Amino acid sequence: MAHPITLYTVGTPNGWKASIALEELGLKYNVHHIQFSKMEQKEEWFLKLNPNGRIPTIVDHSRNDFAVFESGAILLYLAEHYDPEHKLLSANPDIRSQTIQWIMWQMGGLGPMMGQANHFVRYAPEKIPYGMKRYTDESLRLLQVLERQLSDGREYIVGEYSMADIACFGWVACYSYPGLSLETCPHVEKWLFRVGSRDAVRRGTNVPTPSTLIDDGFKMREKVAEDTAKKGKELLEQSAK
Amino acid sequence: MAHPITLYTVGTPNGWKASIALEELGLKYNVHHIQFSKMEQKEEWFLKLNPNGRIPTIVDHSRNDFAVFESGAILLYLAEHYDPEHKLLSANPDIRSQTIQWIMWQMGGLGPMMGQANHFVRYAPEKIPYGMKRYTDESLRLLQVLERQLSDGREYIVGEYSMADIACFGWVACYSYPGLSLETCPHVEKWLFRVGSRDAVRRGTNVPTPSTLIDDGFKMREKVAEDTAKKGKELLEQSAK
Repeated sequence: MAHPITLYTVGTPNGWKASIALEELGLKYNVHHIQFSKMEQKEEWFLKLNPNGRIPTIVDHSRNDFAVFESGAILLYLAEHYDPEHKLLSANPDIRSQTIQWIMWQMGGLGPMMGQANHFVRYAPEKIPYGMKRYTDESLRLLQVLERQLSDGREYIVGEYSMADIACFGWVACYSYPGLSLETCPHVEKWLFRVGSRDAVRRGTNVPTPSTLIDDGFKMREKVAEDTAKKGKELLEQSAK
Repeated sequence: MAHPITLYTVGTPNGWKASIALEELGLKYNVHHIQFSKMEQKEEWFLKLNPNGRIPTIVDHSRNDFAVFESGAILLYLAEHYDPEHKLLSANPDIRSQTIQWIMWQMGGLGPMMGQANHFVRYAPEKIPYGMKRYTDESLRLLQVLERQLSDGREYIVGEYSMADIACFGWVACYSYPGLSLETCPHVEKWLFRVGSRDAVRRGTNVPTPSTLIDDGFKMREKVAEDTAKKGKELLEQSAK
């Protein structure tokens, strides 16, 4: 292995959490693009690293090939071992706890609920208006919770830039995928562009393959957002018939 | 306030995580039973403590009324400030990371997915077989992941008793609520009884009100399990028609 860490990932909001954090910390890492189409994530060698059979997962060759699964746990592992300057997780115990609170909020709320919204709006073989409404409503409620947190004018979720922003960024950036809009969340939208303008965030979202999520001044992302919002809206309207 | 910590909670798997940890650590705390029926969790005074408007939440009066929301973040906060002997979160960085990995797995997987199973099997005003199947299937998959982890004969999820067990216990204990069974998870069942036989766990599940979850030798729990499994099965069968 050329680098001390190997990242097993796919270009999704959960995968980007790991690659963005690695980029922010300036760490060198090998990338293994897990092939969902071949169900590679359910192969025995991978389940030994991640018994849940999901991405992302890291293996730290410099620490006896220690494996870490669950994106939120990867963030806290990298903080403990590779963030001596506390760039992404404060040394102040109160700010550190607030950062962990918002990582947990993303892990238990924003991620799973937007994931279910994506499923019912885009992937479910049957169109089920109840499921579409349940999860797009809950996703919008969660975006409003973030809006409230940012509405005192703070630049980042806990004030300073942190792993809480990294955890939430990818999910919020894909808001239009299930047809959501940020119209009622002006502070969230500004925060999204602020985080997305960081070089390490842009690099992280291009792992394992180039993504169109962030382009110059978010132009491409805006176009993608517009298109996917339109498509999402069509799907929603279609299902309401 | 009589005690240094106030816990705002309701008797649910997420609420029990906080009360069990407080009991295990021998901490004294005030209990505020949040009235869901009055939507107390959405009142402005509470949103200042927990912007997400959910339970559990703690306020630490000994640390300038610092508030912590999200059950997973409460566990890590208590570990940092009130577990100097590392009873619930190891001082060994690898075991500590593994504990956090399984807390994250519970926060992002087991909790949300069993929660959705409960919703579709028990609460949804429409019977939607697709939703019932989707979330009971995923819950069973997650229980199998835990079964695999425990199948090498270890007593607890990361070997020694930890906050990972506390995080998962309440959700697994309520397996029968959406009609699931532990038939194919013998190691999980043994682990469940092992954790449930701890005095602190029993005390924690009786907060904020006495629960019938654990009785002598789990007898009551078994009866409740049997009854709810039967009811869950009926609901599933009904929906399949």
